[in-house]
Amino acid sequence: MTSEGDTPPSPRTLDKGRLESFSDGVFGFAATLLVADLALRPPGGALEQVLRAWPSYLAYVISFLTIGAAWLAHTALTDRLAQADPILLRLNLLLLLVVVFLPFPTRLVAGALNHTASERVFVTMYGLNQLAIRIVGFALDAYARRGHLYSPEGEGEELQSEQRELLPVVVGYVVAILLGLALPTAAVAVYFALALYLVVWPLRRFYRSRSRVHSSSA
Amino acid sequence: MTSEGDTPPSPRTLDKGRLESFSDGVFGFAATLLVADLALRPPGGALEQVLRAWPSYLAYVISFLTIGAAWLAHTALTDRLAQADPILLRLNLLLLLVVVFLPFPTRLVAGALNHTASERVFVTMYGLNQLAIRIVGFALDAYARRGHLYSPEGEGEELQSEQRELLPVVVGYVVAILLGLALPTAAVAVYFALALYLVVWPLRRFYRSRSRVHSSSA
Amino acid sequence: MTSEGDTPPSPRTLDKGRLESFSDGVFGFAATLLVADLALRPPGGALEQVLRAWPSYLAYVISFLTIGAAWLAHTALTDRLAQADPILLRLNLLLLLVVVFLPFPTRLVAGALNHTASERVFVTMYGLNQLAIRIVGFALDAYARRGHLYSPEGEGEELQSEQRELLPVVVGYVVAILLGLALPTAAVAVYFALALYLVVWPLRRFYRSRSRVHSSSA
Amino acid sequence: MTSEGDTPPSPRTLDKGRLESFSDGVFGFAATLLVADLALRPPGGALEQVLRAWPSYLAYVISFLTIGAAWLAHTALTDRLAQADPILLRLNLLLLLVVVFLPFPTRLVAGALNHTASERVFVTMYGLNQLAIRIVGFALDAYARRGHLYSPEGEGEELQSEQRELLPVVVGYVVAILLGLALPTAAVAVYFALALYLVVWPLRRFYRSRSRVHSSSA
Repeated sequence: MTSEGDTPPSPRTLDKGRLESFSDGVFGFAATLLVADLALRPPGGALEQVLRAWPSYLAYVISFLTIGAAWLAHTALTDRLAQADPILLRLNLLLLLVVVFLPFPTRLVAGALNHTASERVFVTMYGLNQLAIRIVGFALDAYARRGHLYSPEGEGEELQSEQRELLPVVVGYVVAILLGLALPTAAVAVYFALALYLVVWPLRRFYRSRSRVHSSSA
Repeated sequence: MTSEGDTPPSPRTLDKGRLESFSDGVFGFAATLLVADLALRPPGGALEQVLRAWPSYLAYVISFLTIGAAWLAHTALTDRLAQADPILLRLNLLLLLVVVFLPFPTRLVAGALNHTASERVFVTMYGLNQLAIRIVGFALDAYARRGHLYSPEGEGEELQSEQRELLPVVVGYVVAILLGLALPTAAVAVYFALALYLVVWPLRRFYRSRSRVHSSSA
Repeated sequence: MTSEGDTPPSPRTLDKGRLESFSDGVFGFAATLLVADLALRPPGGALEQVLRAWPSYLAYVISFLTIGAAWLAHTALTDRLAQADPILLRLNLLLLLVVVFLPFPTRLVAGALNHTASERVFVTMYGLNQLAIRIVGFALDAYARRGHLYSPEGEGEELQSEQRELLPVVVGYVVAILLGLALPTAAVAVYFALALYLVVWPLRRFYRSRSRVHSSSA
Repeated sequence: MTSEGDTPPSPRTLDKGRLESFSDGVFGFAATLLVADLALRPPGGALEQVLRAWPSYLAYVISFLTIGAAWLAHTALTDRLAQADPILLRLNLLLLLVVVFLPFPTRLVAGALNHTASERVFVTMYGLNQLAIRIVGFALDAYARRGHLYSPEGEGEELQSEQRELLPVVVGYVVAILLGLALPTAAVAVYFALALYLVVWPLRRFYRSRSRVHSSSA
């Protein structure tokens, strides 16, 4: 069906620019959408309603941190990327699909916190969504590594240590999801801790490499 | 009316950067907007409401894949583009107009699935919108080819095979639209299959070219 | 207060990249927001409700074209821009302020079409908003020209002819706004015509320059 | 745990491109989201409802200017940035977190203006949010300066004068927040003035440097 040329065309590789800009748009919008769902909690005076809406603020902050952590990981990934390929673009779409879904369970959790009957269901849904984001993000990284899409200088120690970090995170989420079946509010606290950990933890490596540079130049 | 210069000015051609970045923004928002319409389906317990909302999730996934497929096709198009021109920008606006419309019939289909009276109308509207996205996307590609806006190396075998793919897709949509008049739920399944096909099918070419490179280097 | 250096610092000029990317985001989002307001028009069967919502679709298309035309004009402007300066950034914010406002009167017009009492008010508001977009857009262009922010090759015949086009457009809008006080629905038709004109008219120059190139190369 | 290489890897520094593009998206959405909350104020005729909604328009304009000022300051910051580092990315996420929150108190203030009971609470919340935006923005700038992330030519007089400007702004906000406890509507007027000041004030330096260039070239 195709005219057999003498030299086979090389597999089409793509500039990573649009992958980044489309993803930035989607991550940014998913993070912003969370605010559209914030609302007061009647009844009571204005101050009381503002304060009683604390589960909304908490859910907003956790989900913002989760999306922020996913964006940071995505940045670190595309930063080392030498090129994109059609499969990576599709895995990336899958990642965005699960990231964009997050505002929905966030809204449910924010609305149900302290109503134990439905809280259990929504918190589980929330945890599964967070877990899905991590797993698809990991798959994206694994594919890029296996398909040699990273630039050579990026494939060093850093990558391997990041890979080792997936297991504790998945274990953390699974434990939190199971915990949430019994104590939904406690699970939300764990999700908060996990989101904070994912944002703050990579700094450890940054500080270590910086202090090593300082001590070697001393 | 215009001062007749000695050398006629060349037709203004534009950098494709803003075309890409504006389109990325619009595709991204359209995909994200789909989530704003997700909602529980009372009555029932929390779990039951979550599960009974499955048509929303299905519609979300189909529309996300449709917009994703349109974005992938758009990426492939601008990737080969050497330059933009005023007409291409306007055709692109038309494409965005029909892409951005998609969340509306998506919401209608999600709300009406299993209510056969109105389902038929909304599913037809949904199918027509999907068809419009494909046709305008094809027009964009056809114009870019006819106007010699592609860079020379991009105008190879790949383009022609993509063109050949329009007909089966249009036939698929027309069949699904007609099917939807009798069996709306079945048509939704076909739209799911078509969206998956549009996302996954281009990979075939990618794999073929990759295996050819491997066998020729062996 | 400032340490008087020997050489005065040159006025800070900015890269236009972020001006473009922020504007693209805002234009894109304003266009997408229009769809969030689409809704069926009860009472009646599904098809009847879909069809009776035609004012929403019309308002969506007009506003999408208006924002599209503003984006095209913005593209043409930044395309010729050699650099940005702090005042241009602020005029651009003002332009975005009036562009982002458009979904609000659009929603009002879409909801009130055929209800003559309130229609008159909303259509006038809609027209004033469209006029404001054009005037601020013109001010942006005028400032860029006066401040010599355009690259030299961009300051040719094209710019002057674009300037001449403002007057008929402003006259058109003023006439439509006055007309809308008596016949709101007719004014909406004029806004449609004006939006189409703004999108399509610049093509005339493109075709003319292209045909001149063709005839001179013949 | 890490294979001790002979040369310590330098601390990973990042391209600032994605920091800018993600931030542009988030700033843009936050500004646009404000319009989604505009609504008429029943009861009354159409014109009366439009006019009675003036607190919404005022709140929209103030918040748009606030986000615009934050975006301008962000632009000026990244413009001088030679590179990003992991901590800067996280501080930036924190800035976006407080910027994206703004549409929520904006909506509350717009809805409560002239209802003194709840107005006091919402206006205070609004002021605290604006203050948070300024403080985190300042922290971002301070970190970039201390971490030597600015390019050398950017670390001149300009930076120091900007730093000096924080104190009056913080004092202004604190005074307005305290004022708002007694006279909420007056505080809103102060927020308007502060937002205008933040947008317009940096122009002073621009004009000064421009006039100096003119006088030195004379």
